[in-house]
Amino acid sequence: MGTIVIKFGGSSLSTTDKIKQAAKRIANYKEKGKKVVVVVSAMGKTTDQLLQLAEQITENPAKREMDMLLATGEQVSISLLSMALTEMGMPAVSFTGWQAGIVTEKVHSNARIVDVKIDPIERKLSEGKIIVAAGFQGVTEDGEITTLGRGGSDTTAVALAAALGAERCLICTDVTGVYTSDPRYVPQARKLPAISYDEMLELANLGAGVLHPRAVEFAKNHKVSLEVRSSTEDEEGTVIEEEVSMENNLIVRGVAFEKDMTRLTVFGLKNEITGLSSIFSELAKSEIDVDIIIQSQTDGNKTNLSFSIKNKDRQAAVNVLESQKETLGFESIEYEAGLAKVSIVGSGMVSNPGVAAQMFQVLADKDIQIKMVSTSEIKVSAVVEEAKMHAAAQTLHEAFDLGAVAEEVK
Amino acid sequence: MGTIVIKFGGSSLSTTDKIKQAAKRIANYKEKGKKVVVVVSAMGKTTDQLLQLAEQITENPAKREMDMLLATGEQVSISLLSMALTEMGMPAVSFTGWQAGIVTEKVHSNARIVDVKIDPIERKLSEGKIIVAAGFQGVTEDGEITTLGRGGSDTTAVALAAALGAERCLICTDVTGVYTSDPRYVPQARKLPAISYDEMLELANLGAGVLHPRAVEFAKNHKVSLEVRSSTEDEEGTVIEEEVSMENNLIVRGVAFEKDMTRLTVFGLKNEITGLSSIFSELAKSEIDVDIIIQSQTDGNKTNLSFSIKNKDRQAAVNVLESQKETLGFESIEYEAGLAKVSIVGSGMVSNPGVAAQMFQVLADKDIQIKMVSTSEIKVSAVVEEAKMHAAAQTLHEAFDLGAVAEEVK
Repeated sequence: MGTIVIKFGGSSLSTTDKIKQAAKRIANYKEKGKKVVVVVSAMGKTTDQLLQLAEQITENPAKREMDMLLATGEQVSISLLSMALTEMGMPAVSFTGWQAGIVTEKVHSNARIVDVKIDPIERKLSEGKIIVAAGFQGVTEDGEITTLGRGGSDTTAVALAAALGAERCLICTDVTGVYTSDPRYVPQARKLPAISYDEMLELANLGAGVLHPRAVEFAKNHKVSLEVRSSTEDEEGTVIEEEVSMENNLIVRGVAFEKDMTRLTVFGLKNEITGLSSIFSELAKSEIDVDIIIQSQTDGNKTNLSFSIKNKDRQAAVNVLESQKETLGFESIEYEAGLAKVSIVGSGMVSNPGVAAQMFQVLADKDIQIKMVSTSEIKVSAVVEEAKMHAAAQTLHEAFDLGAVAEEVK
Repeated sequence: MGTIVIKFGGSSLSTTDKIKQAAKRIANYKEKGKKVVVVVSAMGKTTDQLLQLAEQITENPAKREMDMLLATGEQVSISLLSMALTEMGMPAVSFTGWQAGIVTEKVHSNARIVDVKIDPIERKLSEGKIIVAAGFQGVTEDGEITTLGRGGSDTTAVALAAALGAERCLICTDVTGVYTSDPRYVPQARKLPAISYDEMLELANLGAGVLHPRAVEFAKNHKVSLEVRSSTEDEEGTVIEEEVSMENNLIVRGVAFEKDMTRLTVFGLKNEITGLSSIFSELAKSEIDVDIIIQSQTDGNKTNLSFSIKNKDRQAAVNVLESQKETLGFESIEYEAGLAKVSIVGSGMVSNPGVAAQMFQVLADKDIQIKMVSTSEIKVSAVVEEAKMHAAAQTLHEAFDLGAVAEEVK
């Protein structure tokens, strides 16, 4: 008898009615003869409400106490969902993170799972019970409650699926799957039937938070078959697995985009071996995420360095660098805001050297200037003016025939 | 360095402002050089809100899942109170029931504490931390979350005080102590400086839920010195200990009263040896609490039996008995509603045989008819018409000089 793990996010559990709906969907899988483990987040706005309470007490809560506080959110969901399942004649039993044996490192607010002690869950599964486990939370070896940080419930689901050798881990969410691009801005966008882990990682910012990259990585490392699907509708979702069948193996699988970017350029940087590392160490210390980095040679002693950051980090980045101008050894800084990044993603492009060139040509034909470029094995990103971001995405989506199968699928 | 345990109820923690106030009071004790363990209930209406959520899901929640749900209430309080203390420069660390080592029997919703594994708390105490432990909840030996039922947080506080050998367990609540009678109805009522465990048990229904009888019993068995006092005001409370000093050892310590009672009389019950036990077994099966029981002989074969129950249980009691009329073997049932019980309590009455007689005389002088009587070593109860309950209480309070010290105290 196969085991499946089903994860429901907080928005799918925001009211008791939604909890009952989720219970019905879960019951379907149980009726198909599966062993079922459900992983849930806190109900809807619960986490925000708990954060508000903490804010009323202190601006600097101890992380240990925040974990203690936030962990109550999922504990409410698991008990209510278990009640709803049992009420439907589907005996269910809830497990907190520590009861489910989710052992983490000794780090509060952003702990990583180091072990899953699966015995208690397996015992209840073998009794025919549905397991409802709290996502997002774990326990250290010495009994401290921890939380897993962003995407934590997804990670819990994948970790349990891996430990139980589940045949699939379903991530039930607000969207029906992973799309070739964001349908709000690219009308031709269609749902992908399947995608590889790496492609999913590169497309992670499509459809805002469908699946946290950390969970995808965990799934990749443990070969857990994932499926992103709707928490309310019956249609098939998008399967995420190591190998995607040739049939679906388009050269480009999707077009992602992201706005609010700034390009910052450091001019006249001394061409010393430690120059780059010094600059990015300083930025990292201030927790400024740097995305694309381009270094261009000017003459033998000096170099210019451009990199992209979020708009919101711009002032902090400039301040940090200016304050260290002497030490870092550069002449001046300039920046250009109002930029965006558009990326094409697909594992097929590894063996298709012309893909990047085709992308640049398509953008050039539409008079879209490329400000920066970055490439990986399965992704090409171009930084363009933010005003042209959606046009660029639509053009690329069309040029790479991503909407082509749409009619067949529907 | 002495240890004290301080318990705060939910109404003393209903808002984040009240939590901050509680933190200030706790800090005072810490500053006096005590090791401090705080036990808290869920914030204000939290438990009611959680119960409402469960009701929206099912009318018959599994008790295990209710415990899972309700246990989140105290977990929120402990984290917030720990934050508030730490914010004041008083490092504090929160403990759930299972972290605090509160081991209970394997019964959900009304478990009894069987062990307290005090090591983790002692370790943190020795580091100078204030401990904030969740009341009302525990864990079974095999890791199931349980709750302790009514008065559970009081019991947790007493159990921790016993296990830690604390010098005192403070129960901080809405009232400033234990009174000779309910001040709302007996204006002369005054706060008692001290009272014995047994007296407290008999007076438990004075001042509605000041301290749960179960916690008092636990304290008595483990010789824990209790003090009931205000959660917001500085004045001394009422100390509850084994021996109360002679000075305070009045014959009668307080007057309690309780309304909404019904007297039910079973006529013509066959005088068989199993008659009584059969009747009260049937009532117990239907969870009907019986208070005073009086059996009167009529002739050799028949007896009449009267007992008092709550008004709300009257119909159920009549139904249960009528349905078993044949088996139980009685002739008819009658009841009188609109009754109340008035009691005088005091360990001094053990050696004062005239106390009951004096009570009856006082009531007779006021033309208050006694419908039933029950006596124990330290209590005499009389059932009277509900309309005369307050008058009876005031008369007895005066007759036994309970208000006498009031002027001196104030």
